[in-house]
Amino acid sequence: MKTATTLRAALVATALSTAVPALATPVDGSGVAWDIVEGLTTEIGPRPAGSTAEDRARDWSAAKLTALGFRNVRVEEFKTLAWQRGPERASLTAPYAQPLAITALGFSVPTPKGGLKAELVYFPTLAALEAAPEGSLAGKVAFIDHAMRAAQDGSGYGPYGNVRREGPTIASRKGAAGVVIRSAGTDGHRNPHTGVTTFAKDVKPIPAGAVSNPDADLIARTAARGKPMAIDLTLMGKPFPDATSGNVIADLPGRDPSLPIIVLACHLDSWDLGTGAVDDASGCAIVSAAALAAQAGGQTLRTIRVLWSGNEEMALSGGGGEHYAKLHGAEPHAIAMESDFGADRVWQVNFSHAPENKALADKVNAVLWPMGVVPHKGRAEGGADVEAIIAAQKLAVIDLGQDGTHYFDLHHTPDDTLDKVDPAALQQNVDVWTAVLKVIANEAGPIGKFEAAQ
Amino acid sequence: MKTATTLRAALVATALSTAVPALATPVDGSGVAWDIVEGLTTEIGPRPAGSTAEDRARDWSAAKLTALGFRNVRVEEFKTLAWQRGPERASLTAPYAQPLAITALGFSVPTPKGGLKAELVYFPTLAALEAAPEGSLAGKVAFIDHAMRAAQDGSGYGPYGNVRREGPTIASRKGAAGVVIRSAGTDGHRNPHTGVTTFAKDVKPIPAGAVSNPDADLIARTAARGKPMAIDLTLMGKPFPDATSGNVIADLPGRDPSLPIIVLACHLDSWDLGTGAVDDASGCAIVSAAALAAQAGGQTLRTIRVLWSGNEEMALSGGGGEHYAKLHGAEPHAIAMESDFGADRVWQVNFSHAPENKALADKVNAVLWPMGVVPHKGRAEGGADVEAIIAAQKLAVIDLGQDGTHYFDLHHTPDDTLDKVDPAALQQNVDVWTAVLKVIANEAGPIGKFEAAQ
Repeated sequence: MKTATTLRAALVATALSTAVPALATPVDGSGVAWDIVEGLTTEIGPRPAGSTAEDRARDWSAAKLTALGFRNVRVEEFKTLAWQRGPERASLTAPYAQPLAITALGFSVPTPKGGLKAELVYFPTLAALEAAPEGSLAGKVAFIDHAMRAAQDGSGYGPYGNVRREGPTIASRKGAAGVVIRSAGTDGHRNPHTGVTTFAKDVKPIPAGAVSNPDADLIARTAARGKPMAIDLTLMGKPFPDATSGNVIADLPGRDPSLPIIVLACHLDSWDLGTGAVDDASGCAIVSAAALAAQAGGQTLRTIRVLWSGNEEMALSGGGGEHYAKLHGAEPHAIAMESDFGADRVWQVNFSHAPENKALADKVNAVLWPMGVVPHKGRAEGGADVEAIIAAQKLAVIDLGQDGTHYFDLHHTPDDTLDKVDPAALQQNVDVWTAVLKVIANEAGPIGKFEAAQ
Repeated sequence: MKTATTLRAALVATALSTAVPALATPVDGSGVAWDIVEGLTTEIGPRPAGSTAEDRARDWSAAKLTALGFRNVRVEEFKTLAWQRGPERASLTAPYAQPLAITALGFSVPTPKGGLKAELVYFPTLAALEAAPEGSLAGKVAFIDHAMRAAQDGSGYGPYGNVRREGPTIASRKGAAGVVIRSAGTDGHRNPHTGVTTFAKDVKPIPAGAVSNPDADLIARTAARGKPMAIDLTLMGKPFPDATSGNVIADLPGRDPSLPIIVLACHLDSWDLGTGAVDDASGCAIVSAAALAAQAGGQTLRTIRVLWSGNEEMALSGGGGEHYAKLHGAEPHAIAMESDFGADRVWQVNFSHAPENKALADKVNAVLWPMGVVPHKGRAEGGADVEAIIAAQKLAVIDLGQDGTHYFDLHHTPDDTLDKVDPAALQQNVDVWTAVLKVIANEAGPIGKFEAAQ
């Protein structure tokens, strides 16, 4: 599956040849997390799945992980369906001329040449759109408003994210020529939030975009005046098949290589609008710095593997997590964890484990209580980058829940940049992850499968 | 000077014909300020000087002031040099490919067709650029960093704003083919701050843009790595002469029309990137709502005039303030005031008056102390919309100083939208202005000239 460029082949060859003999001890975790976020955002920047920037990011990551003392650094490429942004702009043209800050949703199809000029029909909610008669939007553009509010656990992203995920299909079913939504985001800046949408197989894909919250407010105020609205919409992004993405994988081998390993995931790709600082360079930084810091008192018993996944953001047809499970599903894993919710402080822990591992969970909780991290009663789920390996091996999972109150201010926007990362909060993540890893990666007893009612 | 469209002619005719006989009492000030900001931002939006939107804004404003009970509502148009934005984008191309969030400065000239591709040279300060040898930037683009920090009184805009005002001339003098500055702004969003620059007569105007603070941080981090930087810069905005702008003027006549009047100014034009909510729809809203509220206990003794000025933002060759002084310099004025610093709360007052009006100043201070507004010892200056009439008549001036801590988060950016206006803070402005107007517009004694040492 590897389709390396000469450059990468050279880099990885260097990585493999130097990693094993030359490095006695991995560097400790201190400062590592910041360096990773700073480096990825400065030297790579936006790295959308399937792009040459994501390719450069894999080279950068392999070199970085090697330099940090990780072993078995591998780039594992795969083909995927991706999506590429094109020129985009929109204006209200009636009843008042107003430019709109808009961005296309991933897997939007392009508007016609010269733009889509159409009546804009306001729906206050997804339910209101669903209630519209079939065919009633023929030739029109639907606008879907909603009211996402910040929540510490990020739980608003489920219901309000559905406006983005399902709205375009519903609009198309009603005959709409295009759809515009209020961004699934909690900020008040003129930076719309992108993210993938999906079209059901039985509907025609249509151009789909999101406006910023201030622009959505403007549309809502305009709609309230009761005069017909019209939009001039240009969104030229489109899907492209057979793009190359890839995972970067690296190990810190344990004292007993025969024991099932701990896998820590994040994703290396980012949306194109920002530089992917909180989504998800921070996740890669946290898991990798913690894996290193867990070795500070001596090599852990179990191998810790980091998976910097490719194509998490556009993984409609299988992303890095799925590719990882395909290639590594036969290797025994003990516990999966993922960091993909920004860089704010960890405040809760959720451990889904086999009944016989209650004592292990108690040990984890015991180290976290003094750090202000409280146990949560729920199902740990990992995330997109580990869900396939979790499902394949029925893995125990630990979620370290971050404060997500401000995450959806930045998520999938141009504002996802380094200045939004608080170094102290980032280090708190590393410290919490390190504490957990010191317990679980040194667990000698068996770690059972988690056989939850699905 | 009036070059009205048929539509405006009709509107103003209606205004004039209905205003005088039909309206017994002006509406009170309550809710008026919000309605003005909401209306201008929703029904007009961006209204750059010389644009058709600014023209529509004059119609809107004349109709609004008439409906509110103002008399002698007049649109006074004038010709001016203006500037119109074009397509704009930029990327770092070396040592790392990174898109940049950029916007042109007003009076930038266009880049060559196909963009300006050049070495980017980092200067940490304006002083560092000034120290560069003559000709040393030939064919290159200068980047000027700086470190604007928020200040309650907005005083950072002087020195840091100079990077925008003077940087391009200095760069051109050194031979630069273009110049990019860190935005003169205190936020951390990917929304660059525009604003006019000027070129000295003896230098060649060059393309000039500003990047957002996160982008400036990125350039600074990249520069710190010590590798040569290159930029691909497209800024197609350009000046256009003989644009039509105009003032909207309206009076609330006093009981004694022979007394010199109180003039309250704001500006109706805005930058094109946002909808001009805090800069300066709020100012027009505050002065007009307060002028109305000052009549609540009965008509004031002196006439209060509001001046919604045209072309404040691009007034290199004379804006609305200058045109007002030209047309109305022969009418006796007593005191000038201006609101053009956002919509946050008033916290200080500064009254520059003739020595014989100390008792009047004491009365003003006495009504403001209980409102939490403290006297400031300094020179009241008014602002761009009243400086010409102040100079012409040596007017007394009262500045009601707003809290500007967050003003430069929004100033001249796409984020200058209605949601940034706190209705309670807006109303506090109206209340403070009303209290002042009730004193000064009912002052029966002479209000002297302010003959300061210039």
